[in-house]
Amino acid sequence: MQVPSPSTREAASMYGTAVAVFLVILVAALQGSAPPKSPFPYRIPLDPEGTLELSWNVSYAQETVYFQLLVRELKAGVLFGMSDRGEMENADLVVLWTDGDSAYFGDAWSDQKGQVHLDSQQDYQLLRAQRTPEGLSLLFKRPFGTCDPEDYVIEDGTVHLVYGILEEPLRALETINTSGLQTGLQRVQLLKPNISIPALPTDVRTMEIRAPDVLIPGQVTTYWCHITELPEGFSRHHIVMYEPIVTEGNEALVHHMEVFQCAAEFQSFPQFSGPCDSKMKPERLNYCRHVLAAWALGAKAFYYPEEAGLAFGGPGSSRFLRLEVHYHNPLKIKGRRDSSGIRLYYTATLRRFDAGILELGLVYTPVMAVPPQETAFVLSGYCTDKCTQLALPPSGIHIFASQLHTHLAGRKVVTVLARDGCEMEVVNRDDHYSPHFQEIRMLKKVVSVHPGDVLITSCTYNTEDRKLATVGGFGILEEMCVNYVHYYPRSQLELCKSAVDPGFLQKFFHLVNRFNSEEVCTCPQASVPEQFASVPWNSFSRQVLGALYGFAPISVHCNKSSAVRFQGEWDRQPLPEIISKLEEPSPHCAASRRQSPAGPTVVSIGEGEG
Amino acid sequence: MQVPSPSTREAASMYGTAVAVFLVILVAALQGSAPPKSPFPYRIPLDPEGTLELSWNVSYAQETVYFQLLVRELKAGVLFGMSDRGEMENADLVVLWTDGDSAYFGDAWSDQKGQVHLDSQQDYQLLRAQRTPEGLSLLFKRPFGTCDPEDYVIEDGTVHLVYGILEEPLRALETINTSGLQTGLQRVQLLKPNISIPALPTDVRTMEIRAPDVLIPGQVTTYWCHITELPEGFSRHHIVMYEPIVTEGNEALVHHMEVFQCAAEFQSFPQFSGPCDSKMKPERLNYCRHVLAAWALGAKAFYYPEEAGLAFGGPGSSRFLRLEVHYHNPLKIKGRRDSSGIRLYYTATLRRFDAGILELGLVYTPVMAVPPQETAFVLSGYCTDKCTQLALPPSGIHIFASQLHTHLAGRKVVTVLARDGCEMEVVNRDDHYSPHFQEIRMLKKVVSVHPGDVLITSCTYNTEDRKLATVGGFGILEEMCVNYVHYYPRSQLELCKSAVDPGFLQKFFHLVNRFNSEEVCTCPQASVPEQFASVPWNSFSRQVLGALYGFAPISVHCNKSSAVRFQGEWDRQPLPEIISKLEEPSPHCAASRRQSPAGPTVVSIGEGEG
Repeated sequence: MQVPSPSTREAASMYGTAVAVFLVILVAALQGSAPPKSPFPYRIPLDPEGTLELSWNVSYAQETVYFQLLVRELKAGVLFGMSDRGEMENADLVVLWTDGDSAYFGDAWSDQKGQVHLDSQQDYQLLRAQRTPEGLSLLFKRPFGTCDPEDYVIEDGTVHLVYGILEEPLRALETINTSGLQTGLQRVQLLKPNISIPALPTDVRTMEIRAPDVLIPGQVTTYWCHITELPEGFSRHHIVMYEPIVTEGNEALVHHMEVFQCAAEFQSFPQFSGPCDSKMKPERLNYCRHVLAAWALGAKAFYYPEEAGLAFGGPGSSRFLRLEVHYHNPLKIKGRRDSSGIRLYYTATLRRFDAGILELGLVYTPVMAVPPQETAFVLSGYCTDKCTQLALPPSGIHIFASQLHTHLAGRKVVTVLARDGCEMEVVNRDDHYSPHFQEIRMLKKVVSVHPGDVLITSCTYNTEDRKLATVGGFGILEEMCVNYVHYYPRSQLELCKSAVDPGFLQKFFHLVNRFNSEEVCTCPQASVPEQFASVPWNSFSRQVLGALYGFAPISVHCNKSSAVRFQGEWDRQPLPEIISKLEEPSPHCAASRRQSPAGPTVVSIGEGEG
Repeated sequence: MQVPSPSTREAASMYGTAVAVFLVILVAALQGSAPPKSPFPYRIPLDPEGTLELSWNVSYAQETVYFQLLVRELKAGVLFGMSDRGEMENADLVVLWTDGDSAYFGDAWSDQKGQVHLDSQQDYQLLRAQRTPEGLSLLFKRPFGTCDPEDYVIEDGTVHLVYGILEEPLRALETINTSGLQTGLQRVQLLKPNISIPALPTDVRTMEIRAPDVLIPGQVTTYWCHITELPEGFSRHHIVMYEPIVTEGNEALVHHMEVFQCAAEFQSFPQFSGPCDSKMKPERLNYCRHVLAAWALGAKAFYYPEEAGLAFGGPGSSRFLRLEVHYHNPLKIKGRRDSSGIRLYYTATLRRFDAGILELGLVYTPVMAVPPQETAFVLSGYCTDKCTQLALPPSGIHIFASQLHTHLAGRKVVTVLARDGCEMEVVNRDDHYSPHFQEIRMLKKVVSVHPGDVLITSCTYNTEDRKLATVGGFGILEEMCVNYVHYYPRSQLELCKSAVDPGFLQKFFHLVNRFNSEEVCTCPQASVPEQFASVPWNSFSRQVLGALYGFAPISVHCNKSSAVRFQGEWDRQPLPEIISKLEEPSPHCAASRRQSPAGPTVVSIGEGEG
């Protein structure tokens, strides 16, 4: 990036200070241990054709995001911004437009009908507009929070970026309705952590774990199981990085993939490549449950911290691996072949710590259900003090990454650490979570969990589009609430989740029956999904179910890698009691809100080389 | 008020514009139909000694309150402000202080420990400081809402004003902790309606309805009943105003008073003066239930609109009146004598419309209860479409005043009008309601209710200080949720309230029993208060009770003046369904927030005559 040469004194006085401040930040950023190659280390195409390309950088000191929007083929202008879930209505926008004579840059917002309005408070600030060989480059910044009630707050986790193309000059900004434009969305984590990618060791080797030439079944949900094995005599190594290999053309079908290691107590495992629920699947594959790698839609490569790696190979460790690929095929496409899998990067030079993956949240069971027509129903899964007391080392574990997982109804996920009844810190939170964008995210701050701590994972679901209750389970239309946390040093604990006590759920069905004239099937033959399907959903049954989940005892799954529970009584456990809750995050805003201009800025476009 | 003569050009430039603007408003206010005698029509002493006196005026056009604070004996300064319920912590303050040399005026706030901080946004704006023969007079203004999250929002309804006296000069504002000061609170309705007091007719006469020389019983709650009668041959008149007469010294004991007219169908009523629940009370007094006047703690005189008056006297109207005085005697003082009552102002020149009083809210029954340890539990009473359809005239009624009533746990009260399932408008709302300040308030806008409309009255209770459930009832430690609305033209409908169906409440006791090992007394002998007293209160029973009240059918009381229900089926009625809710009120703030100064103002005190 070059410093723009302002063509006039006016432009210099307008942008000079801001650009100077920005350069200071860039210099500061370059002083970090691993200097990014560009002042804008993150880059993503916004539209499928790549006409709009966004690069960005984050100043945590200023609580500000610096954006560089490259418009390759500028017509009459562009809209760019953010909204809660990627809709063009109720969006927080920046608009570059022309009336035919001048070009303007302004902070705007769209109302619930998509009508665009200039914002009374201008919080997007233009720093530079420049013509480059690639197209028009706009440099602007915005604070995370603006205290303008119309504005989007840039938070940790997923941000839904939206864009729109203006084809014709406008008399006024207020003539725009987003419904008439070519628009789209792109999901990103804007507030990337300030963590540099660790260098790979010089002796790094790679290995591809793939299910070759799978004929994807013509059904909506398939979990494909494939057994593969490490070379004979493969010694103990550390996985230091892995990345997905998705067969070209199948990007929309491959929903998530996991590599499991089998249990060491068995000498060998039979070969198998087929659906995990197949009757042909050997019983023994149920003993392949130790997670080595996990990838889901939207994620990129995953790097371990420099001090840790995931051990595999060597004595006391099975040579057999199970790859599980979840195909989501809503259009029931037949005949598609796939060879997706995961590429492991590993080293024989063991790092200081073994890393592990711990699964938090809800057990996959229909007893945890969401009524239909809910906008924000919350289910919580607990990793109790009793389990962490028993299973964690005395010095605790350190969580450095997290991958949130739900199925299609998931809208928010958060895991909170509690100690002695007090919520202490957030492990990971995504208030704009999308099941279509499930990255493994490095945490901004490593979270240490000690024996006796409690981990509460809460998922918020939207079932407005559903007619029946959504129960927990493996199907894509059933729900999950999971946080895979990556940590070191590795402990035996691999899964720490919960579900409501089934006996208390039966009391719920009984009372719903008492309060309603309609029949709820509580006959012993009925399955829990059948029982939920016959509940008459009204304000009472909805609220009572929510109250039950917040009160009834739980069954805790406190499991070792071999799907075996730690010894102890885990049924009908009391819900962890929380006396003191963390405050909801609220953005700072007082500092920035007086500096912004009162209206749109006339854009003076400089010349540069991009 | 005189225009200040600024002593220097600086002062002139600092305040000149603001004062000019203010004078324009005052002139505008003086052009109203009934010119107020002072530019500050409202005045109240803040402390019991009257050292601090507040006068104020409201500009609805600017959404701003103008305050004039008179400090009779200035020491080192004063704090004045507002807080949610009159506490000195978390208060929004304006502080006048001196460091020994200069005097300063600044917008500040106290944190939850009472520590005072200068506000980053200065929203109280000093317009003038002036020494007068009476003391120091400070003129300042503040917008209703400031968009500063630390700031109190001035809303309709009760405002808790707080004050504190600074005895010594300070080095800095931040050295103040409110816990070390002489402080106090005063409740007012700051946003008085822009309604002028109607002139009384020239032929107005007065009549005092008092219970003479009552020996107040030495118990906490007494409802005293006293029968009095109008003169023989007293013709039809209109009450146009009434005011309380509280015996000096008993101000804290007399909680509320009502004057009822007896039923016309009885020729005479026996004399009686004694507790309303006395076994000696003649049965016939139960037929004296038509409200003529109602007063409660904190209220002042009540004026009818010029077009309406409350009819009494004449044929078809009983000569007998029942005065009911509610003595609240928490210290169980014995031997106190009282002759309180109400003075009626009436005219023989009948106005165009008869006015009436309609009682909305909850029936006084223990089936409506609030669990203990709740911070904000809401109970709602319904006046259903079926009742208004049957009882209101085809052209509807017009509500012009409202008096909210709860007992000690009440914190908020609101009545909303709904039509065809949609909430249309708020009849009256008080989000800082105090049971110690129950005024009859003229509405800012007359609300018309048509046959088929629904009126929902919701009360929010705080029972953090209680160990047992608080049930509905007449006792001061039981609860009520009532809105007495004053309206014209008078209809037969005098009471339109509801309570949950008792059968559904029994289902609640039954299910609580099923979900808890502890015993809930559901034996047929147990009264509802006994049943509530034995409920184990946990998150489940609390939420289920709330859900029950939001779902179960109701018993509706749709009553004529004689405590007789209108004909129809009123038991097990469905709850009115609300499809569309009104938005919560949110203050405007964009306009004002850029004009305010960045820090405290050095005060230059002018000389004047006040």
